[in-house]
Amino acid sequence: MPTIEERLKAANIVIPEAPRAPTVHYIPYTVSGNIVFISGQLPFQNGEIIMTGQLGRGVSVEDGRDTARVCAINVLTHLKTACNGDLTRVKKVLKLEILVASTPEFHEPHVVANGASLVMLDIFGKEIGSHARVAYGVASLPLNAAVEVAATFEIS
Amino acid sequence: MPTIEERLKAANIVIPEAPRAPTVHYIPYTVSGNIVFISGQLPFQNGEIIMTGQLGRGVSVEDGRDTARVCAINVLTHLKTACNGDLTRVKKVLKLEILVASTPEFHEPHVVANGASLVMLDIFGKEIGSHARVAYGVASLPLNAAVEVAATFEIS
Amino acid sequence: MPTIEERLKAANIVIPEAPRAPTVHYIPYTVSGNIVFISGQLPFQNGEIIMTGQLGRGVSVEDGRDTARVCAINVLTHLKTACNGDLTRVKKVLKLEILVASTPEFHEPHVVANGASLVMLDIFGKEIGSHARVAYGVASLPLNAAVEVAATFEIS
Repeated sequence: MPTIEERLKAANIVIPEAPRAPTVHYIPYTVSGNIVFISGQLPFQNGEIIMTGQLGRGVSVEDGRDTARVCAINVLTHLKTACNGDLTRVKKVLKLEILVASTPEFHEPHVVANGASLVMLDIFGKEIGSHARVAYGVASLPLNAAVEVAATFEIS
Repeated sequence: MPTIEERLKAANIVIPEAPRAPTVHYIPYTVSGNIVFISGQLPFQNGEIIMTGQLGRGVSVEDGRDTARVCAINVLTHLKTACNGDLTRVKKVLKLEILVASTPEFHEPHVVANGASLVMLDIFGKEIGSHARVAYGVASLPLNAAVEVAATFEIS
Repeated sequence: MPTIEERLKAANIVIPEAPRAPTVHYIPYTVSGNIVFISGQLPFQNGEIIMTGQLGRGVSVEDGRDTARVCAINVLTHLKTACNGDLTRVKKVLKLEILVASTPEFHEPHVVANGASLVMLDIFGKEIGSHARVAYGVASLPLNAAVEVAATFEIS
């Protein structure tokens, strides 16, 4: 079995450091017992949102999928903090919520969502990484982001 | 007290078999302790989505309600699997998330949602079946489905 | 440390009584172990929705924030009932879901959401009140409400 470090390398994922400046009105995650709730993550990369706009109007499915992947990597940032840096404490990816900024005519939020789902499968493997999810098209997202991903995990 | 089998019959509900072909990127449900998270279910019946389009543009409230009912029945399919086929292990319907593909002018997602809520009340009775929920109108759903329903349950 | 009663007074919040007439198809909250799931709350005040319409089309960000605040106060109503009237039993605000009726051109659902987040921080303080959240723009809400807020709490 490959380690999580090896899996991250194979998937070409570098988990960014958690941002220094905390949000004022909410926090990136909460913990109750062994359940971690991660706040909705936007597709920030190096301090900038990598993709704005709507699926169905200028943002392609491929772009959407890549954007969902970045959101999911940002989920991992906070999950790692919740685990004191040790992602082997993750016992199950329980649920992803994948919100896709969409026109009414865009009918593939599930394909966009796969970009986030694959991050979990790539990093945690099938047994731990396979997850329940909801995916749908929303009218708009904070800062005009194209995708937002929230998540729930079980940790030890 | 009627049995769940009797309730299913009275409500004219046949819980379909779980689809043979599993999804690749996610799974229908996860379990943590005694909590079951069911993925968002589309209104599939005999392998086809029974209602596409938006509420407020061609899909009536009645059609929406019937569609929500089918989504909820598909939730039961996976819940039954999570319970090894024994729905008497369901201790509480904790929460339904009911997503209704809507125009901005459609203001009755809660009425559509009742189609899903009634399935839970009909099958589990008031004590176990009454539940918290969120219901709202979304821009679009996978495969142009009119309604999607996700759920959380407590089982023994 | 101020008491919750003192905090409510300082924030000028009066938690309304739970409505006498229960909903037929769902209930305001469910409990599993020490987790409370609160149903999506609309901005009812004295039996009327205080703000209808969409952000980005007539409803200002300030109005949206005030509306989110009222939704959050209604969340407290049901949370209080779940705690048998004793809000000191609340151990953690785990997650808020803040749904903002929005045009595709409105990109500040997170600012609207702050109106709900601040209620939690004001009433429970930073340690208990700080929370994970998701906030996004939806196509429409029940009864044309401008905002809806659902929540998950840990209680003792």
